[in-house]
Amino acid sequence: MAPVVNGRVLFNSIPEGFPIPGTTVIYDTSEHIDPESVPLDGGFLLKTLELSIDPYMRGRMRDAKIESYVPAFELGEPLLGYGVGVVLRSEYPGIKPGDHIYGGLEHKEYAIRKDLNLLSVIENPHNIPWSAFVGVLGMPGMTAYIGWKEYARAKKGEVVFVTTGAGPVGSLVIQLAKADGLKVIASAGSDEKVQFMKELGADVAFNYKTSSVAEVLAKEGPIDIYWDNVGGKTLEAALDNAKIRARFIECGMITGYNTGYEPIRNLGLIIGKTISLHGFLVFHLEAKYIAEFYRELTPKVASGEIKYREHVYSGLESVGEAILAVQKGENKAKAVVHVADR
Amino acid sequence: MAPVVNGRVLFNSIPEGFPIPGTTVIYDTSEHIDPESVPLDGGFLLKTLELSIDPYMRGRMRDAKIESYVPAFELGEPLLGYGVGVVLRSEYPGIKPGDHIYGGLEHKEYAIRKDLNLLSVIENPHNIPWSAFVGVLGMPGMTAYIGWKEYARAKKGEVVFVTTGAGPVGSLVIQLAKADGLKVIASAGSDEKVQFMKELGADVAFNYKTSSVAEVLAKEGPIDIYWDNVGGKTLEAALDNAKIRARFIECGMITGYNTGYEPIRNLGLIIGKTISLHGFLVFHLEAKYIAEFYRELTPKVASGEIKYREHVYSGLESVGEAILAVQKGENKAKAVVHVADR
Repeated sequence: MAPVVNGRVLFNSIPEGFPIPGTTVIYDTSEHIDPESVPLDGGFLLKTLELSIDPYMRGRMRDAKIESYVPAFELGEPLLGYGVGVVLRSEYPGIKPGDHIYGGLEHKEYAIRKDLNLLSVIENPHNIPWSAFVGVLGMPGMTAYIGWKEYARAKKGEVVFVTTGAGPVGSLVIQLAKADGLKVIASAGSDEKVQFMKELGADVAFNYKTSSVAEVLAKEGPIDIYWDNVGGKTLEAALDNAKIRARFIECGMITGYNTGYEPIRNLGLIIGKTISLHGFLVFHLEAKYIAEFYRELTPKVASGEIKYREHVYSGLESVGEAILAVQKGENKAKAVVHVADR
Repeated sequence: MAPVVNGRVLFNSIPEGFPIPGTTVIYDTSEHIDPESVPLDGGFLLKTLELSIDPYMRGRMRDAKIESYVPAFELGEPLLGYGVGVVLRSEYPGIKPGDHIYGGLEHKEYAIRKDLNLLSVIENPHNIPWSAFVGVLGMPGMTAYIGWKEYARAKKGEVVFVTTGAGPVGSLVIQLAKADGLKVIASAGSDEKVQFMKELGADVAFNYKTSSVAEVLAKEGPIDIYWDNVGGKTLEAALDNAKIRARFIECGMITGYNTGYEPIRNLGLIIGKTISLHGFLVFHLEAKYIAEFYRELTPKVASGEIKYREHVYSGLESVGEAILAVQKGENKAKAVVHVADR
């Protein structure tokens, strides 16, 4: 087989505000590879099938000198993110052609990997679509499951408010909360997403662009649990409308990722109301829950008991567009870049 | 016995900023009482001995129309606060002359109480001074003990930062943290208070008026636990200098009580660092801990193993002055108003 183009998505410049396709990241075709003959040097050759586009990626598009919880992307190098690939060839013990691998992948079509650092082999006896393993059964699903199990202390009849309820994290939180017998208030940014949240079982679903969060919570709350993916004024409204002993699960604050964090003016309420705010990154907690997560969720996803929805972007060329859509909330559901069928 | 003046401290006007003695609260001598003959109607006559002046009292000096976790003081009526009194006469079952009572007392010399609502009889076999029961063995001590037990999850060798470390809450937190084997960084607002914190065992004690909190934490941290009594920029500095999985015990935010809460600009850090912020009011938690608190702390206070310090103000006339000093941090230690010896 002759060498083929090994398409890559490179981090090209540090964005000031929102990441601009073609400027912040560029699609590059300058690298070539011969999948049949490229030397493996004891590693294995992975072909990328699905890549996950997630809100947190914005945080990696920064000056490498600024420390943060995940390293900055390197300028001129491929982006990194969660993905699923298939092994084409292997010299690595225990890894064989046809194995599917989940974990941190470079945004390129083919990669030679020397070890299983941040990677694991996917077992898929139910033949669930591979893309699900970067969504409901990947990092976003784990985030929802683990955050809920660790912090919610949910009791039947309580009221939860879930933001970004049509996204991969929020949509699973809605379903976990309904399974625990809660009243679910859920918000998202389009009427189509509102419809999806209702299908998931949300008791009150609303479009935050056309309804006031504060008014909805004043009417349908007060709340016992808040699942925060947005921060800013929405967090302030949740504090205003929280019950005594409320639990706030602080999973994300996307309102701050591109334009700077909005200051929180009413944090003092957590004292008088005995509220706990639990910030978390899933990878700080996943060791405790990961086996339980797959054991519990996989059959429910396979049977359709747990629902999920994807917004599929085609090809590495679409990564820049997908990243921007996720930061603006313009994707319709969990954003996945489909790179190859097999 | 002829009627005597029943001195009272009345809530006179809602303060705009700091509460002004003689304006916000006034000392009033218009009420008279004959302690020997006043009808009890089945209740008991309580003579006030010690009154506690605490930071949270500022929150009650508001328009009664504004809802909050404790009711507003009523204009024209006596202030209410924690105190200790002695029973002079009683028609109430189980209460006899000479009993000492702890709980919510009106700021007046004599009061007739009809029940034990928010009151309890003090057992004092060690003959500890009665004033201790509004400080280290009262609400402030319980706040320190219960907050620490419920939220700190302290491990030997960890680092804690304690604000208002010379006050009744902070000074007990320092001692509990040292007993748990932690490195203690503690701040207060005078060199005399810094000296006291060193005597309590603080490894690093500093005056926040002459040293930068951010610089001290950068040098002596990062921190695993933060005991917050102040909020504002100090809380921001603690977030900047917190370790992954840090616990923040949000007990108070006195920087906001008189001039409005400062917005918190870096709350987003709680996600990347997996930090939990636990706001709490002691009365939401005390049922779980109160017996343990007295059993554990009383002998240690009696033996001097647990140290405490008081700033004693004399007479109800001094309540206004004591309240202002506590809001400004100008009291030297736990503020107690000594009303009568017995």
